[in-house]
Amino acid sequence: MSNTKTAAIGIDVGGTAIKAGLVTSSGTVLARESIATETHGGVDHVIARIVDLIKGLRGIAGDDSVVLEGVGLGMPGTLSRRRGMILSPPNLPGWRNVPIVERVSSATGIPVLLDNDANNAALGEYRCGAGRDASDMAMLTLGTGIGGGLILGGRLFRGAHENGGELGHMIVHAGGRACRCGQLGCLEAYASADHIAWQAREAIAAGEPSSLRSRVEKDEEIRAEHVIDAAEAGDELARRIWDQACFYLGVGCTNIRHIFDVDRIVLAGGMSAAGDKLLRPVLRAFEEVSSNDGGKLPDIRIAELGNSAGFIGAALSVFTE
Amino acid sequence: MSNTKTAAIGIDVGGTAIKAGLVTSSGTVLARESIATETHGGVDHVIARIVDLIKGLRGIAGDDSVVLEGVGLGMPGTLSRRRGMILSPPNLPGWRNVPIVERVSSATGIPVLLDNDANNAALGEYRCGAGRDASDMAMLTLGTGIGGGLILGGRLFRGAHENGGELGHMIVHAGGRACRCGQLGCLEAYASADHIAWQAREAIAAGEPSSLRSRVEKDEEIRAEHVIDAAEAGDELARRIWDQACFYLGVGCTNIRHIFDVDRIVLAGGMSAAGDKLLRPVLRAFEEVSSNDGGKLPDIRIAELGNSAGFIGAALSVFTE
Repeated sequence: MSNTKTAAIGIDVGGTAIKAGLVTSSGTVLARESIATETHGGVDHVIARIVDLIKGLRGIAGDDSVVLEGVGLGMPGTLSRRRGMILSPPNLPGWRNVPIVERVSSATGIPVLLDNDANNAALGEYRCGAGRDASDMAMLTLGTGIGGGLILGGRLFRGAHENGGELGHMIVHAGGRACRCGQLGCLEAYASADHIAWQAREAIAAGEPSSLRSRVEKDEEIRAEHVIDAAEAGDELARRIWDQACFYLGVGCTNIRHIFDVDRIVLAGGMSAAGDKLLRPVLRAFEEVSSNDGGKLPDIRIAELGNSAGFIGAALSVFTE
Repeated sequence: MSNTKTAAIGIDVGGTAIKAGLVTSSGTVLARESIATETHGGVDHVIARIVDLIKGLRGIAGDDSVVLEGVGLGMPGTLSRRRGMILSPPNLPGWRNVPIVERVSSATGIPVLLDNDANNAALGEYRCGAGRDASDMAMLTLGTGIGGGLILGGRLFRGAHENGGELGHMIVHAGGRACRCGQLGCLEAYASADHIAWQAREAIAAGEPSSLRSRVEKDEEIRAEHVIDAAEAGDELARRIWDQACFYLGVGCTNIRHIFDVDRIVLAGGMSAAGDKLLRPVLRAFEEVSSNDGGKLPDIRIAELGNSAGFIGAALSVFTE
């Protein structure tokens, strides 16, 4: 019987959850699981949870029809893929110079490949999601910050020191808004979920009228999705902040177009849940901002795999390296 | 005797001059030649001149010690490398859909490879100039406009539709100065030689005091080098324009760093003749603008091959494709 499938286990470790799945080489998810990361338990505890997840999924893969090729492990940066080491990720306090690949592979007996979560998510979308059929793809991951992932000529682009693709820290308005990274005018400083929420809070604190003021008065959080909803409902302050975020995303896409000449740009991350409320104004801004010399323009789309992209891409990385 | 050298002929066709050379596979220039392009003579005339140049250099290569592998031909864009066609280069009026590779190779009997001049120049600097020993290199060609060349992982990066690396049209100040391309706030709109000269003329026409006014009164041209010299001599207007150009080049280098994580950035083109007058303020701006997270920063240098980079790179492209 030649009904066997080649598969890999993909693991996506985040600050709050670990998502995992058993994925075939063609991207079909045979099984999936999600557990809390429990970072408070410390490094050994989290590694034990990762190992348990892998053993459970190996059990599912255990019949003769699945050949398990390895484990792809995605973690937040900073890390060294080549050395299989977690260096000092801001989202995993206490993790410093952890030889994660060695520890997980020796505990499971399965070869492990490490990469950062943004690269894995980009690979997942490229192979099975909104990047399907594209030749070259750039992904903007719109969350707390803005991450970037690049697939050029079918391969993940990493840069000379494994730090390439930091598209969120491209300066789009020199001398502009202060970014967490210390620079002024980064794309992230206008269009990340955190900066969108901060701008709303700053403006309300400065006395600007807004329907969002009631949240402040009730001591409730303002998040990017509240700003987006208020903008849709006609709130002027929210409209201004959201329009500005989408405008700068249009500028970012313009720069990605000129720099990379990709045929696909994918908007991913938490904010991409806004769907058309995000895509329409970004497309409008791109059209307004970007020169039209008759050349081919990238197709800009919303990501399709949601937060499964990370573990799917992690698993697929086993077959592409 | 195994004293034979493998060599190629490199041709760099510009709007005013055709530069050419016989170059070994390791980048040694065995012979060089430069003639006027004579674009006014039309397509057939210019092609005849290219063919004559190639025949002349083949004659030099004609002894037994040189094995001629082919011709690398660099032309200004737009062109199709794959189809060997000149499409409609702005600097070569009247050239439309010219099958240059077919025409030159059938007239000379030597295989011809076509690429754009900026890519060839980047390859030349990477292999034999300021990019030597770098793993990944970005080149900004500072001339009339700002061109870009990218060598990633040892290979020229071209993009999905052969239009990648347009670093000059990266927007660094959204809503800013109008660029020739129709966009607002491109790097080129602040830091190309033309825009530097235009800004000086605009300001003088608007009544700003400057030592450059005498040139206007004598009906003399103001070029970027005049602005640079006046800035060095303490002219305030010139200083402001030049400082601004170098500031935006520092922003551009910051973006290149975050996006590509290259280990080398090379400043080339006519303006790079300013040497330290260019390099020092750009380095200062880069340091001021760019976040410092302890990561490795690119080494920013002035190009070394001057206007030989194009024909040297064109010849070397024969050995790298």
